[in-house]
Amino acid sequence: MLERFSKKGDDFDIVSEDKLRVVVRDIFQEVGLPFEDAIIATDVLVTADLRGVETHGVSNLLRSYVQRLRDGSTNVRPEWKIVNETATTANIDADRGHGIVICPKAMDIAIEKARSTGVGMVTVGNVRHMGMAAYYPMMALPHDMIGVAMTSSPPTVVPTFASIPRFGTNPIAVAAPAGDQPDFVFDAATSVIPDNRVHIARRLGIDLLPGWLADDAGNPIMKPIPAPPFMEHKLLPLGSTRSMGSHKGYGLAAIVDILSAILTLSGPGLARSRGTFAHYVAAYQVEAFVEVDRFKNLMDEFLSTLKGTPTAPGHERVLFPGQLEWETYQIRKKQGIPLHKEVINWFSDICQELGIDNTL
Amino acid sequence: MLERFSKKGDDFDIVSEDKLRVVVRDIFQEVGLPFEDAIIATDVLVTADLRGVETHGVSNLLRSYVQRLRDGSTNVRPEWKIVNETATTANIDADRGHGIVICPKAMDIAIEKARSTGVGMVTVGNVRHMGMAAYYPMMALPHDMIGVAMTSSPPTVVPTFASIPRFGTNPIAVAAPAGDQPDFVFDAATSVIPDNRVHIARRLGIDLLPGWLADDAGNPIMKPIPAPPFMEHKLLPLGSTRSMGSHKGYGLAAIVDILSAILTLSGPGLARSRGTFAHYVAAYQVEAFVEVDRFKNLMDEFLSTLKGTPTAPGHERVLFPGQLEWETYQIRKKQGIPLHKEVINWFSDICQELGIDNTL
Repeated sequence: MLERFSKKGDDFDIVSEDKLRVVVRDIFQEVGLPFEDAIIATDVLVTADLRGVETHGVSNLLRSYVQRLRDGSTNVRPEWKIVNETATTANIDADRGHGIVICPKAMDIAIEKARSTGVGMVTVGNVRHMGMAAYYPMMALPHDMIGVAMTSSPPTVVPTFASIPRFGTNPIAVAAPAGDQPDFVFDAATSVIPDNRVHIARRLGIDLLPGWLADDAGNPIMKPIPAPPFMEHKLLPLGSTRSMGSHKGYGLAAIVDILSAILTLSGPGLARSRGTFAHYVAAYQVEAFVEVDRFKNLMDEFLSTLKGTPTAPGHERVLFPGQLEWETYQIRKKQGIPLHKEVINWFSDICQELGIDNTL
Repeated sequence: MLERFSKKGDDFDIVSEDKLRVVVRDIFQEVGLPFEDAIIATDVLVTADLRGVETHGVSNLLRSYVQRLRDGSTNVRPEWKIVNETATTANIDADRGHGIVICPKAMDIAIEKARSTGVGMVTVGNVRHMGMAAYYPMMALPHDMIGVAMTSSPPTVVPTFASIPRFGTNPIAVAAPAGDQPDFVFDAATSVIPDNRVHIARRLGIDLLPGWLADDAGNPIMKPIPAPPFMEHKLLPLGSTRSMGSHKGYGLAAIVDILSAILTLSGPGLARSRGTFAHYVAAYQVEAFVEVDRFKNLMDEFLSTLKGTPTAPGHERVLFPGQLEWETYQIRKKQGIPLHKEVINWFSDICQELGIDNTL
C-alpha cells in the first residue's frame, strides 16, 4: 500500500509486461535455470508486479534471487524429490532449489491430488524463498478449488511477553473462487507488518506507526518512531500487545512453522539458518463438498455484500481481500508495470554484465 | 484469563469432575438427548471447564443449551446425514442438531478419512453451537494427527473501514501433537476479543481496553471505556485498526466463513439468522508427511525453546498456545472444578425442575 501511494511521477517508467517477462526470463536462464523453470519463476515475480504487490515483484526480489542463484546458495538445477507420499499428501525435498521454481510444481501436485481425492497437501523443505505466497492458492482457482499456502521464514518476530525474535513473518495465503466478483485472495504476514515495511520507511525517512515494533527489551512500542537506522528490528505479532491479541498473531505464526517447517523436519524458523525456508501448499476441491455453481453464487453474494457495507466516517469504501490487487491487475495488464528508474538502471547493468539483450 | 483471576474465595465451590459429568449428562438426557449423545455433549463442556476455559464450560453455556434443547430450536434427535462425500471429505447436514453432539462425530469421520488417505476434512451445516473449538483438533492428537476446527458465528465484528458488523468472532483452532511437552493447542477468535469478554466486563463493572470495540459509526475506540450497558456491541477484528492490521483479522474471519458456512451452502454469518452456525473440522496424518517420532521430537524442541525465551520486563515467562490450559487441566483433574455459587444454585433448581438427583 505504502508503495502504491509513493509512486510519484518522474521517478517511474511504465514497462510492458511482455518485455519485462522476456528480460526476467533471460536473466534467470543466463544464471543457470532451465528454460521452463525460468518461465515459471518469471511468472511468480511478474504476477506480483501486475497485482501491485511490489514487495514481492522484480524491483525488490530479483536482485537477491539472482545473486543467490549465481553464488550457488540457491541450486539452479536441483534434483528435488518426493520423500514421502500418500493419495492426498506429499513431502518434497527441494535440494536447495528456488521456491519460485519448486512451489509451483508442488502446488500442481496438490491440485492433482485434490482432483482425484478431494484434498491435496504438499510440504516443501530444503528450499529457498517462495515469493508472493498468494501465487500458489491462486493456482487452484481455475480448477474450482480453494488454495492455501504458508511459509516459515527467518525470525524477526517477538512472541508475546518475550524479548527476542522467535518467528519469521510467516504469512498465510488463502484463495477461493467467486463467480462474477473478483476471486477472494487473502495473503498476510502473521506479524503486524512485513519486514519490508521497516526497510521502506527507513529508505523514505518516514516514521513507523504505533504497534509495529518492540523495543530492545521486547516491550511493544505504542507511539510513532523513526525507523531504526540498522537492519535489525523486532517486529510484533499481529495484535501488537497482549490485551489486543498479540498471542493470536504469535499462535498463528507457530501454526505456520508447524505445518511447513516441522512437517518437513526442516526445524522451525528459530532453529534454521538465514536464507532457509519451508513451505506448505494445499488445494481443496469445492465439488467434493457442494455444487460449484452454488458455491460461487454464494461467494458472489458474500463478497458484494462486503463491498457494499456502509463505511465508517472518512473511508470511501469497504474492500475485501484481493479486491485492490485485482483492480491493480486490470490496469497493469493493459497499461504496463511502473518500475522505479533505479530498477530500470539495474536491469541495464545486469543485462550488460550477463550479455543479454535489454529489451525493456 | 479474566475469569481465572476473578475467581476469588467464598463465591466458588470446588466440584468433583465425576459428579459434574453425571449431573450434566442426566440433564442432557432428561431434556431429550439419547444417552450416548448426552455423554458426548457432557465431555465437550466439562473438558472446557477442566482446561479453565470457563467461557465455554457449564457455567456459561449449559443454561442456554438446555433452554434451546427444551424449546425445540435445537433438535434433540436429529437425523443428520452426509450430503456429499469423497475419500477425504464429507459435508454433513446436521438437521438442527447440537454442535457438541454432531461435531465430535464429524471429527471422528475426519480422523477416519485421514487414517486411510492422509487428510480428512468435514463441514457441518444446519447445526447449533460447537462449544469450545479446541475440543475437535484435540481429538486428533491421540491418533498422531494435526487437528483443525473453525466455526462461523452470528455477526458482531466490524470489517476494516466499515460501520456495521459482518462477521462472527469466527474462531480458528489448531492442535498438533508433541512428545514430552504439552501438546500445542491454539484456539482463538479472529476478533480482538470474544463477545463474552464484553459481557463479563459489564457484569464486573470494569472497563473495556483500547482496541476492542468500534463506536457506533465504526471508528476503532483506542482508549479504555465502560462496557456498553446494552447487549449490542461492535467488536473490532484482530489487529484493531488498519495500520495495526485489522484487515488481517477481517480476512481470517472471512476465510472461516468460506470454509465452514459457504462450503456447506449455509450462507455466511452475515446472511444467517441468529443461533445458526456452520462448522469445519479437519485432521492431517503426521505420518503421511514424516516419521511421527521425529516430528514429535522437533515439536518438543520447538515448544521448549518458546517456553525458554527470555522475557520482556515485567513478565514472568513466555507461554505457548495451550500451555496454560494444560497446566489448569492437571490441577483440576486432581482437585476438581471451581463453580460459582450462582451456578451451583442453578444446578439445584434445574435438577429439581427436571426431577433429577442433584449429586453435586
